[in-house]
Amino acid sequence: MKKHNFYAGPSILSEYAKEETSKGVKNLDGIGLSVMEISHRSKEFMAIMQETTSLLRELLDVPDSYSVIFLHGGASTQFCMVPYNLLNKKAAYLETGSWAAKAIKEGKFFGEVEVVASSKDSIYNYIPKGWSIPDDADYFHITTNNTIYGTQIKTDLDVNVPLVCDSSSDILSRPMDVSKYGIIYGGAQKNIGPAGVGYAIVRNDILGKVDREIPTMLDYRTHIKAESMFNTPPCVAVYAAMLNMRWLKEQGGVEAAYKRNIEKAALLYDEIDRNKLFKPTVEQEEDRSFMNVTFIMNEEYKDKEAEFMTYASGKGIIGIKGHRSVGGFRASIYNAMPKSGIQVLVDAMKEFESKL
Amino acid sequence: MKKHNFYAGPSILSEYAKEETSKGVKNLDGIGLSVMEISHRSKEFMAIMQETTSLLRELLDVPDSYSVIFLHGGASTQFCMVPYNLLNKKAAYLETGSWAAKAIKEGKFFGEVEVVASSKDSIYNYIPKGWSIPDDADYFHITTNNTIYGTQIKTDLDVNVPLVCDSSSDILSRPMDVSKYGIIYGGAQKNIGPAGVGYAIVRNDILGKVDREIPTMLDYRTHIKAESMFNTPPCVAVYAAMLNMRWLKEQGGVEAAYKRNIEKAALLYDEIDRNKLFKPTVEQEEDRSFMNVTFIMNEEYKDKEAEFMTYASGKGIIGIKGHRSVGGFRASIYNAMPKSGIQVLVDAMKEFESKL
Repeated sequence: MKKHNFYAGPSILSEYAKEETSKGVKNLDGIGLSVMEISHRSKEFMAIMQETTSLLRELLDVPDSYSVIFLHGGASTQFCMVPYNLLNKKAAYLETGSWAAKAIKEGKFFGEVEVVASSKDSIYNYIPKGWSIPDDADYFHITTNNTIYGTQIKTDLDVNVPLVCDSSSDILSRPMDVSKYGIIYGGAQKNIGPAGVGYAIVRNDILGKVDREIPTMLDYRTHIKAESMFNTPPCVAVYAAMLNMRWLKEQGGVEAAYKRNIEKAALLYDEIDRNKLFKPTVEQEEDRSFMNVTFIMNEEYKDKEAEFMTYASGKGIIGIKGHRSVGGFRASIYNAMPKSGIQVLVDAMKEFESKL
Repeated sequence: MKKHNFYAGPSILSEYAKEETSKGVKNLDGIGLSVMEISHRSKEFMAIMQETTSLLRELLDVPDSYSVIFLHGGASTQFCMVPYNLLNKKAAYLETGSWAAKAIKEGKFFGEVEVVASSKDSIYNYIPKGWSIPDDADYFHITTNNTIYGTQIKTDLDVNVPLVCDSSSDILSRPMDVSKYGIIYGGAQKNIGPAGVGYAIVRNDILGKVDREIPTMLDYRTHIKAESMFNTPPCVAVYAAMLNMRWLKEQGGVEAAYKRNIEKAALLYDEIDRNKLFKPTVEQEEDRSFMNVTFIMNEEYKDKEAEFMTYASGKGIIGIKGHRSVGGFRASIYNAMPKSGIQVLVDAMKEFESKL
């Protein structure tokens, strides 16, 4: 039976990336060696790193004044790298979920942190509005998409200090005006590639302004200078990311992905709104993520949750259990999820409703 | 033509690990999803992390008072994690190569560092002896195997302070008495698995003794408490590492690998010593690594280096160019290199000699 992969992350990758990574793990481009066992200084791997970097740069139309780097680790490591590299006295953060809260915690190791607004009191089910950022903040940090809570900041904010964003779970889902950001960073394991590699898009002039000494591996400049090859990179994860971004480019790039994502999300949200069993957890439509769709059962059907989960499993639907802090269901519909996969879920919701 | 992979790292992996990783990247154990796209909280991945951890623990007979963890990044990240977690006032380091020098550099960000001895002046072609460690050092740091220079500390040292070792390039090559170490750490990309995952074997009571605050991801306790699952692990690299360690266990474990490694190294060193064209770069036999065999051409044949490289390539021999700081040749003969592969190199050396 075909599986429909709605995992929040690690999550669905393109068939092309899986197929070609599988081949490369056995025998890379027919050279008789695995991509896992060639030197990172070999001409074969140097070409892989080069293409991976160029693809991310091209897909997001990154200006020349920015560096694009790939790193070990995910967003969690960069939660401390960002303040290590940028926080002199004070930073401002928007608290839109538990990942934002984790970033805030790391910021506090390095200086004063002002949380300009938080939606914690209502289990992060909306994006706070109407806040203001102190002019003396070294940067303002946001999490563009909140995987657990199904909310998303879908526009590029205009702010009065350098804007830093963790875009782990919605990078490449929509065109971004990179020039509005100081740093865009994250872990790859949603739209870029598999877990085990992180990325950062860094405006070069934002670095080198803090007084503290920075350990070598935590200094963005180390990786910029060495073009992501300061130490041995996570080669197989980089290779899979390259292939997955190649596929995205083939599919029309980020502009085309964005159109598909809007359609795909509408298909699912419309069903949630229509179906008498379900309701969304994010009330304001403008805050609803088109990457992670969170929904629960209406009060009178609450006792049917486990039954629906089993029913959906029977249709090959995988990974729709909601995070424990929100409950219910979460369908993660990243770039590689086809509309047909969402249709299977929507059909299951309809069928389950009609059987009651 | 069969390729004989002598790369220093990333480096040769067992056929079993390559074959099975390739399958798992396409379809993990027949579940219809790739190991790259399943949640790290899925029962399938939880079992993988569990087995990976158990295998390393079993292969090195790690005492219960130690934790075994897998991390993002390689040894380079841990060059700063070690002093972050352990260095209160002063640490002692043995400088046996450029990786050791890099570890020393990071130590200096956190406190006083005493280099007890260095072989830098003779391009690190021996392991310094006869040093002493100040009693007030928080730890003593060594690099057990020096990939670039072909030297190795092949015994477990008895020292007066906690012993910390970067064993990236010889872990699992010989039995170790783990109880003599405070921390054994490194990157996986030699004997454990592919690049993109690091490991640490930590005596639990060594932690929690520094005054400074430690950012979450750099605190060993974070990963110990979460059993290597604090954040999304580098899943595909962990999977390949599990398979490669499964293979090692099947081959008789570390004790058997050690016997093979001694034989394999002897085969090559004997030929280097015998062949009139070549000489080893490491003079003292006791310092010679059985993981990385470095050799150069005798003065009168120096002009034949490029020719031998081409000749060897013609036999399918890959990756024997020496590091630029040493020159000549380096044959890395990790656990997964069979004796037959070394025989191909030895035969090429003999044939090349006979043709002159």
